[in-house]
Amino acid sequence: MTSPLRILALGGLGEIGMNCMVMEIDDEIIVIDCGILFSDLDHFGVEFVIPDFAWLVERKDKVRAIILTHGHEDHIGALPFLLKSGIRAPLYATHFTSLMIRKRLDEYGLMDSVDMNIIRAREKVELGKFSFTPESVNHSIVDAVALLIDTPLGRVIHTGDFKIDPTPFYGSMMDLSRFKKAGEEGVLLLLSDSTNVERCEHSMSESRIYERFEALFAAAEGLTVVAMFASNVARMGQILEIASKLGKKVILSGRSMEANSRLAVEAGYLKEYQSVLISLDDLHLRDRKDVIVISSGSQAEQGAALLRMAQGEHKQIQLGKGDLVLMSSRYIPGNEKAIGRMINQLFKQGAEVLYEAVHDIHASGHATKPELKQMIEAVNPRYFVPIHGEYRHLVHHARLAGECGLAEDRRVVAVNGDILEITPDSIRVAEKIEEPRVLVEGREGNDVSKLVLKDRRQLGEKGVVFSLLVRNRDSRRIIAGPDIIARGLASEQVESWLLEEAKNRVRHLVQEHELQMATTGVEPDLQENIRIELRRFFLANLGKKPTVMPIILDL
Amino acid sequence: MTSPLRILALGGLGEIGMNCMVMEIDDEIIVIDCGILFSDLDHFGVEFVIPDFAWLVERKDKVRAIILTHGHEDHIGALPFLLKSGIRAPLYATHFTSLMIRKRLDEYGLMDSVDMNIIRAREKVELGKFSFTPESVNHSIVDAVALLIDTPLGRVIHTGDFKIDPTPFYGSMMDLSRFKKAGEEGVLLLLSDSTNVERCEHSMSESRIYERFEALFAAAEGLTVVAMFASNVARMGQILEIASKLGKKVILSGRSMEANSRLAVEAGYLKEYQSVLISLDDLHLRDRKDVIVISSGSQAEQGAALLRMAQGEHKQIQLGKGDLVLMSSRYIPGNEKAIGRMINQLFKQGAEVLYEAVHDIHASGHATKPELKQMIEAVNPRYFVPIHGEYRHLVHHARLAGECGLAEDRRVVAVNGDILEITPDSIRVAEKIEEPRVLVEGREGNDVSKLVLKDRRQLGEKGVVFSLLVRNRDSRRIIAGPDIIARGLASEQVESWLLEEAKNRVRHLVQEHELQMATTGVEPDLQENIRIELRRFFLANLGKKPTVMPIILDL
Repeated sequence: MTSPLRILALGGLGEIGMNCMVMEIDDEIIVIDCGILFSDLDHFGVEFVIPDFAWLVERKDKVRAIILTHGHEDHIGALPFLLKSGIRAPLYATHFTSLMIRKRLDEYGLMDSVDMNIIRAREKVELGKFSFTPESVNHSIVDAVALLIDTPLGRVIHTGDFKIDPTPFYGSMMDLSRFKKAGEEGVLLLLSDSTNVERCEHSMSESRIYERFEALFAAAEGLTVVAMFASNVARMGQILEIASKLGKKVILSGRSMEANSRLAVEAGYLKEYQSVLISLDDLHLRDRKDVIVISSGSQAEQGAALLRMAQGEHKQIQLGKGDLVLMSSRYIPGNEKAIGRMINQLFKQGAEVLYEAVHDIHASGHATKPELKQMIEAVNPRYFVPIHGEYRHLVHHARLAGECGLAEDRRVVAVNGDILEITPDSIRVAEKIEEPRVLVEGREGNDVSKLVLKDRRQLGEKGVVFSLLVRNRDSRRIIAGPDIIARGLASEQVESWLLEEAKNRVRHLVQEHELQMATTGVEPDLQENIRIELRRFFLANLGKKPTVMPIILDL
Repeated sequence: MTSPLRILALGGLGEIGMNCMVMEIDDEIIVIDCGILFSDLDHFGVEFVIPDFAWLVERKDKVRAIILTHGHEDHIGALPFLLKSGIRAPLYATHFTSLMIRKRLDEYGLMDSVDMNIIRAREKVELGKFSFTPESVNHSIVDAVALLIDTPLGRVIHTGDFKIDPTPFYGSMMDLSRFKKAGEEGVLLLLSDSTNVERCEHSMSESRIYERFEALFAAAEGLTVVAMFASNVARMGQILEIASKLGKKVILSGRSMEANSRLAVEAGYLKEYQSVLISLDDLHLRDRKDVIVISSGSQAEQGAALLRMAQGEHKQIQLGKGDLVLMSSRYIPGNEKAIGRMINQLFKQGAEVLYEAVHDIHASGHATKPELKQMIEAVNPRYFVPIHGEYRHLVHHARLAGECGLAEDRRVVAVNGDILEITPDSIRVAEKIEEPRVLVEGREGNDVSKLVLKDRRQLGEKGVVFSLLVRNRDSRRIIAGPDIIARGLASEQVESWLLEEAKNRVRHLVQEHELQMATTGVEPDLQENIRIELRRFFLANLGKKPTVMPIILDL
C-alpha cells in the first residue's frame, strides 16, 4: 500500500500572507514558500509574524527541497528564520525570484549557506518521491510560477499566487491549456490562491494601467509621483517605456525601488530604458512636468519617501499645485487609515492625488472568481483545498469548487496547523498542531511571547507606576521611601497630585503594616498589599488600573 | 457697517466625526453640533477625541444656543464635556434627538443642568442676531434636520448630515424645493456634508434594504442575526415590520439596542410592532428559523454581543450551520481589520455571513456626488464651505461646487481651527487657532497629552526597565543594588540573561563612577550615565531602546 501524502500549512491558510506549505510522503518533505506576514500589532513592537518552524525542525533531516513560487515577501520573507532554525535544504526558484531571495539572505549573511537552484518554466525537477514542473503564471511580480508536483499518489497542482492576464506587460497570458492537459491526465489535488475570491469581475489587465498612465503622464502640469510596490517590475517597466515614448525622465525614489530595479536588470528586464533614469539630485535641472518619480511608501510606512513628501519633510521633493500623485497599489488591510491620512496630507501640500476611491490605477495580481473558476474547471481535480486567504475567502473558494461540480467530500477548508492526509480515495484532516505562528520583532526576529504582548498592551494603554521602599533586613522596618514614579499614567497636572496622594497611601499602609507586625508578630505581604492598594486607588481616581510595580529593597 | 459673520469649526473639518461648528456675530454665538470622534489610538488608552472648547470657554457668556442636527454620537457625544467645561446655553433639538441627548447626559447626571428645547421642522426659532428654521432631511437616524439660519448678513444653510432618499422607511423624501426656494431668496453661505463625495452613484434608498431583508428572512434555515448601529431606528422598524409580516419574532441584543428602541417608541416610532419582540431568554422556546436577532457590535467592539457570538462565547446564542449573519452597517475606518477577523470567526462557527464585499445590505446615510450636486444647485449659494469630511473629501466637494459654477473665490476649503470671516462681499480665513482637539480616556474624559501618548507608545512598543540603587547620602557611595526589573521587554529566557548582564553593566559603571570620584573629586551624573549605558546595551542586544528608568535612592 502506498503511503499517504500529508500536507500541512504553516501559514497562508486563514490569513493573507506568511505562505508556507509542507508536503510529506514517508521520510521525504518538500516546503513550498516561506513568507512573512506584516503585523497589525506594530503598536506593541511586533513587526511581523513568521511561521513556527518547530514541527519542521523536528523533521529537518527529511526536508529535500524548499521551493519558492515567486519573490514577494509573503512568500520568501521568512527564509532567513527558516535557515536560522537549522533547516538546510536546496532552494529552488526562478531567476528573478532567486535574486530577490539573494538580496534577502545577504542582509543576514546567510547566502553562502544555501544551495540555490534556478528553475525554469516547464523544466521538470526530480527530487525523490516528489518531482515538480514549474509553470509560468501571471502575477504582480515577474517570474512567478505555479507548481505541477508529481507524487507516487498522483499529481498535485499548487497555483502559487496567480491571475489570468490576457495582456501582461512582460510575457504572455499564462497557458491554461497546460493545466487543462494536466487535468485530463488526472490531478489528485488542486491548491489554489483564494485572495480575490470575493471579486466577481475578471481582474484588470496590467496593460490597462499603460493607457491610463500614458494619458496622465502626457497631461502632466507638474511632477508626477507614482507610489507602488518596489517588487512590481512590470509596472516599473511600463512607466519607463511610457516615459521614453513621451521624452520624459524617471527617478527611482526609495532604496528598495533602486535595489529591485537593479535585480530586474540582472534578470533581463528594464534594460532598454536605463537612459530614461535620472538621479534625484538632478530633479532641479529638469522641467517638473517632464519628470516621473517612482516611489515606495504606498502603505504610508514610517520614514518612507512618500510619507515624507506628504508631511512636507522630504529634502529634495516638495509637492505643490500642479503635481500629481498616483496611488498605484492596493491597501494592505490594517493600513487603510494611515494611507487615508497620507492622502489628506498630500492634498494639503496642494498636490492632486488619484487613489482607489476616485480613479482606479492599480491592477491586482490575483485571480477573481471567474478566473478561479476557469482554473478549477481546467484542472478538474479529485480534491480541492483553497489556499492563500482568510477563512472567509477559503470558504467562498471551496463553495466555488462546489459550483464547478466538486462534491462536498472532495473539497476541504483547512487552516494553518491542520495536517491533511490524502490517499487516492480520501482526504481528511488527520491531525492538528497548535497554531504555527510566531510574532517577532527586530531584525533578528526575536519572538514576542503572549505574556510580553499582554504586558506591553497594559503598559501602552494605562502606563506604569513604580513604588520603591527600602527596608532594614533585620528589623523588617522601612527605612526609606516611599518613592513613587510613573510613566504614561496621566497628564502632568493630574499626575503630580495623584502621585503625592499615592505616596500618602503607601505611607499609611506601611504604618498599618508595622503596627500589625508589632501586635501580631506576623509579617503581612507588604509588596502585594501595596500593589492592591495602588491599583484600587488609581481605578477610583483615573478609572483604570495601571501596571503597578512595588519594590522593597532589603538593606 | 454690519459686523461680519465669523465661523469656526472645532471639529468635523478634516475628519469624519467630532462635528462642532461655532458661528459668531458681535457678542452672539451659536454652536451647531457637539460630537466625538472614536479614536484609532485605542492601543494607547485613548478612547475618543473631543473638540477643545477653550476658545468657546473664553467667550462663554456670548453663547446663545447649542443646536443639535441629529442624535448620532459624532454630533451629540461631546455635550457632557462641553457642559462640564462650564458652558451653559439652551439646547435645541428635535424630539428623538433630544431623547438621545437625554440618555447621554443622564449618564453624567447632567440632564438637570440643561434647558432643552424641542424644535420642529419648519418652525422658526428666534435667538437674537441668529434665528433658524429646521428642515427635515433623510439620514440614517430619524428626526435629522438641516438648519436654515438667518443672520443680519444673509442666510446660511447648514445641511447637517443628509442624503436624498426618494423612499425612506419613515417619513418622505426631503423636500429639495425648500432649499431651492431659499436659494431663490438668496443664500449667503452653504455648509454641506462631504462624507460620501467620493461616491458617484446615487445613494441606496433605505427601502431597498426592505426587499433584501424580506427575501433573506423568508428563506432563513436557522437563526438570523442582523448586526447594525443601535441608532438606526428606521432599519429596526423595517426588520420589525418584515418579521410581523412573515410571522417571525425579533430579539434585541445589546444594551444600546434595547435603550434606543425604547427611545424610538417614546418618539412615536416602532410602536405598532412591540408584539413581535421577544426576550433573548425565550429564544430556546422558538424555532430558530422564526427568530431574528438585531445585534449591536457591528464594529467588532470588545465585549459586544456579536463578537462574543463569533468567538463562541455568547451564553445564549451559539451560532452554527444554517444560521445567517447580516452585516448591515458601514465599517468605521480603522475597524476594517477587526471586523474582517470577526467575520472569519463567524464563518468558523459555521454560520453564513453576508457582508459588504459579497452582498450589499447596508444603505449609507450620506449623500453621494449627484445628490450633493443637487443640493448645491438648489441652494446656489454665494459662498460654499464643505463640511463633515476628511481633507480630501472637502477638496473634492469644493471642486464639485466649482463644477456647479461657483468661482474659485466663492468656495473655501477650511479646516478645524480656521476662523472664517464672511461679509456680503467676501469670505476669507481671517485667523487660525491651534488645532482644537483633545484626546481623552475614561468616562470622565481625562485628557491624554502628547507627552503621555509618547510615553505610552514607547512603553507599549519597547517595554520598560527599572534600575535601582541605594546610595549613602553623605559618603555618596552605593550601599545596595543594582536591582533591575523589566516589563514587556523580551520573552522570558532572553529577558533573564539580559537583565543579569544589565546588572553587571551597572555594577561596572558604579565602580568606574566611584573611582572617578575618588581620583577627581567630582561626582558624575550616575543616573544619566546608567540611562545612557542601559539604552545602549539594549539597543545592541535587542535592537531597540526601551524606556529606562534609573532610580537612586539616597539614604
